[in-house]
Amino acid sequence: MSQKLSTPKGTRDFFSLELKKRNFLLNVLRDSFESFNFQEIQTPSIENLSTLINKYGDEEDSLMFKILSSGEKIKKADINSFKDGNLHGFANSLSDKALRYDLTVPLSRFVKQNLNEITFPFKRFQTQLVWRADRPQKGRFREFLQCDVDIIGEKNCLNEVECIKIYDYVFEKLGLPKLILRINNREVLEGISRIMNIENLSEISSTLDKSDKIGIDQVKGELVKKGINSESIDKLLFFLNIDGSNQYKIDKVREEFSINKISTDSIDLIEKIIDTCNQFELKNIELKFDLSLARGLGYYTGTIVEVSAPKEFSIGSIGGGGRYDNLVQENNPKLSGFGISFGFDRIFLILEELNLFPNLLDSSKSFLFLNFGNDKISNFINSINKLREDGIVCEIYPSDIKIKKQLDYANKKQIDFVVIIGEDELKKDIFKVKDMSKGDESTYSQINSLVEKIKEIS
Amino acid sequence: MSQKLSTPKGTRDFFSLELKKRNFLLNVLRDSFESFNFQEIQTPSIENLSTLINKYGDEEDSLMFKILSSGEKIKKADINSFKDGNLHGFANSLSDKALRYDLTVPLSRFVKQNLNEITFPFKRFQTQLVWRADRPQKGRFREFLQCDVDIIGEKNCLNEVECIKIYDYVFEKLGLPKLILRINNREVLEGISRIMNIENLSEISSTLDKSDKIGIDQVKGELVKKGINSESIDKLLFFLNIDGSNQYKIDKVREEFSINKISTDSIDLIEKIIDTCNQFELKNIELKFDLSLARGLGYYTGTIVEVSAPKEFSIGSIGGGGRYDNLVQENNPKLSGFGISFGFDRIFLILEELNLFPNLLDSSKSFLFLNFGNDKISNFINSINKLREDGIVCEIYPSDIKIKKQLDYANKKQIDFVVIIGEDELKKDIFKVKDMSKGDESTYSQINSLVEKIKEIS
Repeated sequence: MSQKLSTPKGTRDFFSLELKKRNFLLNVLRDSFESFNFQEIQTPSIENLSTLINKYGDEEDSLMFKILSSGEKIKKADINSFKDGNLHGFANSLSDKALRYDLTVPLSRFVKQNLNEITFPFKRFQTQLVWRADRPQKGRFREFLQCDVDIIGEKNCLNEVECIKIYDYVFEKLGLPKLILRINNREVLEGISRIMNIENLSEISSTLDKSDKIGIDQVKGELVKKGINSESIDKLLFFLNIDGSNQYKIDKVREEFSINKISTDSIDLIEKIIDTCNQFELKNIELKFDLSLARGLGYYTGTIVEVSAPKEFSIGSIGGGGRYDNLVQENNPKLSGFGISFGFDRIFLILEELNLFPNLLDSSKSFLFLNFGNDKISNFINSINKLREDGIVCEIYPSDIKIKKQLDYANKKQIDFVVIIGEDELKKDIFKVKDMSKGDESTYSQINSLVEKIKEIS
Repeated sequence: MSQKLSTPKGTRDFFSLELKKRNFLLNVLRDSFESFNFQEIQTPSIENLSTLINKYGDEEDSLMFKILSSGEKIKKADINSFKDGNLHGFANSLSDKALRYDLTVPLSRFVKQNLNEITFPFKRFQTQLVWRADRPQKGRFREFLQCDVDIIGEKNCLNEVECIKIYDYVFEKLGLPKLILRINNREVLEGISRIMNIENLSEISSTLDKSDKIGIDQVKGELVKKGINSESIDKLLFFLNIDGSNQYKIDKVREEFSINKISTDSIDLIEKIIDTCNQFELKNIELKFDLSLARGLGYYTGTIVEVSAPKEFSIGSIGGGGRYDNLVQENNPKLSGFGISFGFDRIFLILEELNLFPNLLDSSKSFLFLNFGNDKISNFINSINKLREDGIVCEIYPSDIKIKKQLDYANKKQIDFVVIIGEDELKKDIFKVKDMSKGDESTYSQINSLVEKIKEIS
C-alpha cells in the first residue's frame, strides 16, 4: 500500500503554485530563445536504442531507462547471458528502445533524418523531459526538464558567442547575480595529454572535472592511483597552476604548445571567442578560461563551457554545453554542432532561494458564485458563460452545502471574490460581491448588470 | 543504419511550424481550463506498476510500456516462467515501473497521496504525454498528448455539467462545427444487463462500443458468437432500437426499468444533467442520450460521455470521459471523480483539415543582420542586444559567406527583414533594410538610430 502511494524514486508531482513558477521560468527561456530566432522542435520521449547507445560513454549508457520489449518480442530473451552472469547482454536482449537521455543525441538523429527539409545553419531550441537512472540528489532528479539551444552548421565561433550571449540574456532577465562561465576546449586538453604522454584524454578527464570540488592535491592523488607517472602529473599540474587573467593563461598555453610543436588553433579559438564576447558586452556572465574543465559526455570535440551556480549554492553547474563535430555526420565540417543546456531545476532552486520569482505570477482575479440551490442557478448561469468568454476566471460551487463551507473552499483556493445571489438577493434584484482578501462586501442593484460590474472589478 | 534514422513506431518528431499550431491549440485548452478555475498539476511520466495495474482492464494492462529493471534488480528475472511459456509472468519479474497510460489513474494516486494538502472539490487540469503500445492508426499514436480536466469530490451532477460546458466552450473557441456529445450511464447499462439476465456488463460493453461502426445487425452477430442467448439479445436490441428525442428515450427506459423493478436513479441523473446543460445554453454541443455508449476503461461507474468527430472524419471520438466512484477511495461518496479528456491529436487533425488555425500564428517580425566580416560586426552588435531586450526577434548570420547565400537562408527561414551594414554603409554612416516579402529596400541615415528605426518597422 505504501509503495502504491508514492512516485518512483527521483520523480516528482507538481502542484499548481509550483507549476506557475515553473511556467514563468520556462517562458523566460522560450521567449529568449525565440528572440535569438531559434526554432522549436520536439522529438519523441522514446528513441531506438541504436540511436542512443555509444554516444555518451559506458557509464551513461548504463543509466538509461530501457523499455521492456512487449508481446512476442520478449521471447528473444538471452537466457544464456543471464546464466553466465552477463546481465548487460541479458538486458540488451530484452529491449530495443530507451527513454531520451539528453536532447542533443535526438537532435542529431532528427537532423540526419531530415537533412533535406532543414535550412542550415539550423538553430533549434527544445524544452523537453529527459530521464537518467542517476542517484537523486539536491537539484538532481531522474526525470527532469532540459532546455537546449543548438546550432548545427559550419564551425564558426560566432555560434559559440551567440550561445554564451543567450546565457547572459536569460540570467539577466531572471535577475540572477553575475555568474562565472568556464570555457575550455577538448583539443586543448588533447594537447596537454600529448605533452603528458598519455594515450587517452579520458584517463584524466573525469578527475579533472572534479578538480574544483576536490582541489589540486586530491587530483594528484587520484591520478597516481590511476597509474599515471609523476612526470606526466607534474606536466598537468604545471598547466592547472597557470594563474592570471584569461589573456595571460591563453598566452602561456600557446607558448607551451608551440614549444611542444602542438597546434595552437584551439587556443586561438578560445581567444577569439572571448574577444568577440567582450564586444557583445556581457552583463551577467564573467568568462573564465579554465584548463580543468573537461565535461563528461563523450561526444564533445571542441569548445566546452559550463556555468557554475553562485558560490553559496553547492549544486554544481546550472548549465553547460560544447561543440560536437561528429554527432551528425563524421568528419563533415559543414555539419558540426554547438549547443548549450539550461539546468532547469537547479536554476529554479536558485530563483526560489534568492526570492527572484515575481510576486504576481497570476494577475487575473477569480470569482466563486455561491450555490443556493440548483433552482436558483438558472438566474445567472448565462452571466458566468459571458464572463468566461471574456477570459474571466469564474466557477460555481457544485452543490448547495452550507455557505460557510463554500466560503472555506474560496479561502483555501485563494479565490479573490465571492458572488452572492441567494433567495433574498433574487427577490430584491440585487447581488453582493465579497472581497475575500479584505472581507468587504458590496451590494449592487440589477442582476442583469452582473457581467458589466464584474468586468469592472476584475 | 536505416533503423538508426527513424523514430520508434507510433512516435513523431515535430517541426517548428507544426509546434506553433500545437501550441496554439494547447493554449486554447489551457486558457479555457483556467477560465473555469481548474488548477494545473503534473505527475511523473513513470509510475510504479502497482499504481497502474488492474485499473483499466487486461488488454490495457498489456499495452503499457514497461521500464526494464536496471542493475542488480534484473537478477530477479523469473526464468522458470520464461521456460514455461508464461511470458506475462516473466515480463512482470523484469519490471516494477511503467510509462503513464492515462492521466486519470495518476491523478487518483496524486489525490490519495496528498489528501491533506488538497482542497475539495478538487478541480484539476493536466496536459501531459501518455504512452500506449497500441497499433498506430490515423490520429492514433503510441506517444500522445492528453488534456484532461477532472473534479474530485462529492458526486454532484453540476460537475458533469461543468465538464460538458468546457467541451462546448473549447469547441466554440476553436470554431469547430456543432458536435454530438453522446451521454450514457454505466448503471443504466448494468440495469439493461440485469434485464438481459447476463452476469457481467463487460460481456456486452466492447460490442456495444462498436455498434455505431458495425451497425445493429453485426452487434447481434457478435453477441451470438459470444454465446449470449437470443432472448437476452432481443432485450438488448429493444433498448438499442428506442428512437426519438432524449426525453422520449429517458421516459421509455425509465418505464422499462420500473416494470423490471430496477432503480431509475441513473436515468433520473441523465435527465437532470441534460436539463441543466440546456440552462447553460450549449452552443457547440448537441447532447444525445445513447444507450449504445459503453466506453472501454474499467474504472468508470456512472455517467459516461463521448464526443464524436464530425461525420466526414472517420477517426472515432475526439474526447470522452466519465464518473469513477472508486478510483480514489473505494465506496467513499465524498471522493468520487468525474473527468473528461480532449483527444489533442485528433482535434489538431480536424482543425488542420477544416483550415481553422489562425493565419497569423506568429505576429512578431524577424530580422537578419547580414555578416560582412566579423571586424564589421562590432559596429552594431549592441543594437542587436537592445533589440532583443525589447523582445524583437533578430539574429546575425554566423559567417561572412556570399551575401546571396545569406539571403537564401533568410528566404528559407521566412525572415521578414534583412539589415545591411557593409563596408559601403559604414563609410556613409547609413544602413539598409530589405523587406523580404516585398523585395523593397529602404535606406536610413545614421547607424546609431538603428534601434529606433527597427522598432518602428517591427
